[in-house]
Amino acid sequence: MTSLKMSEPVQIAAVQFSCSPDPAKNLARAIELTRNAAAKGAKIVCLPELFLTRYFCQTEDPSNYELAEPVPGPTSAVFESLSAELGVSIVLSLFEKRAEGLYHNTACVVDPKRGYLGKYRKMHVPDDPLFMEKYYFAPGDLGVKVFETQGIKVAVLICWDQWFPEAARIATLMGAQVICYPTAIGWQPYEQESHGTAQYEAWETIQRSHAVANGCFVVAVNRTGFEPTSPAGSYPDGIQFWGQSFIAGPDGAILNQASETEEGVVLASIRPKAISEQRHGWPFLRDRRTDVYSVLTQTFLDENP
Amino acid sequence: MTSLKMSEPVQIAAVQFSCSPDPAKNLARAIELTRNAAAKGAKIVCLPELFLTRYFCQTEDPSNYELAEPVPGPTSAVFESLSAELGVSIVLSLFEKRAEGLYHNTACVVDPKRGYLGKYRKMHVPDDPLFMEKYYFAPGDLGVKVFETQGIKVAVLICWDQWFPEAARIATLMGAQVICYPTAIGWQPYEQESHGTAQYEAWETIQRSHAVANGCFVVAVNRTGFEPTSPAGSYPDGIQFWGQSFIAGPDGAILNQASETEEGVVLASIRPKAISEQRHGWPFLRDRRTDVYSVLTQTFLDENP
Repeated sequence: MTSLKMSEPVQIAAVQFSCSPDPAKNLARAIELTRNAAAKGAKIVCLPELFLTRYFCQTEDPSNYELAEPVPGPTSAVFESLSAELGVSIVLSLFEKRAEGLYHNTACVVDPKRGYLGKYRKMHVPDDPLFMEKYYFAPGDLGVKVFETQGIKVAVLICWDQWFPEAARIATLMGAQVICYPTAIGWQPYEQESHGTAQYEAWETIQRSHAVANGCFVVAVNRTGFEPTSPAGSYPDGIQFWGQSFIAGPDGAILNQASETEEGVVLASIRPKAISEQRHGWPFLRDRRTDVYSVLTQTFLDENP
Repeated sequence: MTSLKMSEPVQIAAVQFSCSPDPAKNLARAIELTRNAAAKGAKIVCLPELFLTRYFCQTEDPSNYELAEPVPGPTSAVFESLSAELGVSIVLSLFEKRAEGLYHNTACVVDPKRGYLGKYRKMHVPDDPLFMEKYYFAPGDLGVKVFETQGIKVAVLICWDQWFPEAARIATLMGAQVICYPTAIGWQPYEQESHGTAQYEAWETIQRSHAVANGCFVVAVNRTGFEPTSPAGSYPDGIQFWGQSFIAGPDGAILNQASETEEGVVLASIRPKAISEQRHGWPFLRDRRTDVYSVLTQTFLDENP
């Protein structure tokens, strides 16, 4: 039965928007755009990273821990109902409170019939100026997760995970046909002129490369808009999120893409047969040298450790 | 002393040309273009895959085994002398005869002062229509190799290896600052119109992604020209090699590139400081989840193995 299903295309949507300081507004916006995506025929909808709030990791402030909630919890319950109502599956990025003093950057998947399917906790946690995530998020301890929904195997990885070919490969070895990357990435306005193009291109390139290396679909979902570093701050002290959410096919070609500033829905058809066509043309999975890859578990192969 | 040297830029050259049916002509052409590269200031020169011959793997023909030679051997000796004369290091791709009935797709590096530095044997061996390499080449058994020459740590991987992020990552963990990919890749004219752009873009994307993921330089060196499948054959029965050799910086940006048909030298400056600048901006090596990567040694993570 699974193999029959595998030939049916499924529409997937990346939902891009700008996040306000008001979580209630962001929740309403996410619901509105999920409805739009469903109306356009999407069966799987992917929301951006931590879309309920501004990207609070620009500073280290313990009061932000109050933004966290359990997963599953109140927000996933809202989207479970929405999922059942619309008949769409939803990939949902949330700030997870696991225990007092233990928080994760988490994403879960809800399915119209089966409700909450499970969660993934971001494994690769960044820490750079204005992206101080190691302060807020303990590294994920669930490994890579793949969720079957709408007859499609969906891996969910989160933002910084997108720079690590290892994570995409593991998802593929677990059978993922689509890898979704809820993301919050942008330019620091000071470096946009000098490094902006190279940074954006590197981001697009690495994610398209996961599609190529693995012969799978990739969905990159980013937020847009400018967010100041401090609540009362203004441009250029903050992050200019670069939008440009896109969906790539298993040959790495971009099937559809939003602009830098556009808010809305990016749609593409997940055609499972495109995966076998690509992998039959270039059968990389056949030729991996698993006998030499064990050193990938090392941090570095020092000459003098 | 190494750390002082690390800040000195070194020019590297990718040499692209069309290979004739006559090995003596190809040898002369490789020598001529290596001289040109040296005259333009290159200190490291990388030649395309199996440049001494036409790409004979389009068919399975035991008489082609006679094209193989020991490595080190007669051709590496020629380039050792050239290297010493010109003061340039050379990355040299050869069809290696290891024993009767045991052959490899091999690359070696020669250094102007130290001569033959060692060899790498292609680990990932393709086998597709017109690229029947599994017939000719036993999979490499030397692992990933990094050679220090001209004060730069150079990893040599070969063609099909370029599709495997695992190989580039291992090279990086071994300290590689540059990864060179001698290559012979092209279009089957029958599919050039339908798949040509996507195939080329996938090739460029995956190699630029290795630069991005690893914060290192990447040199992709391809041949150009049309080669018929049979000696007496003609277009479109054969491979149209797509040239477009390029050098990418550690941010993935292409620094210099040849056209599809151009024969000659693509030069770029390897500036080791660009590696630390890139890695300080996006410190991926800091954040790898080595605790979850051991499954990369599996062929597939079957639900029911």
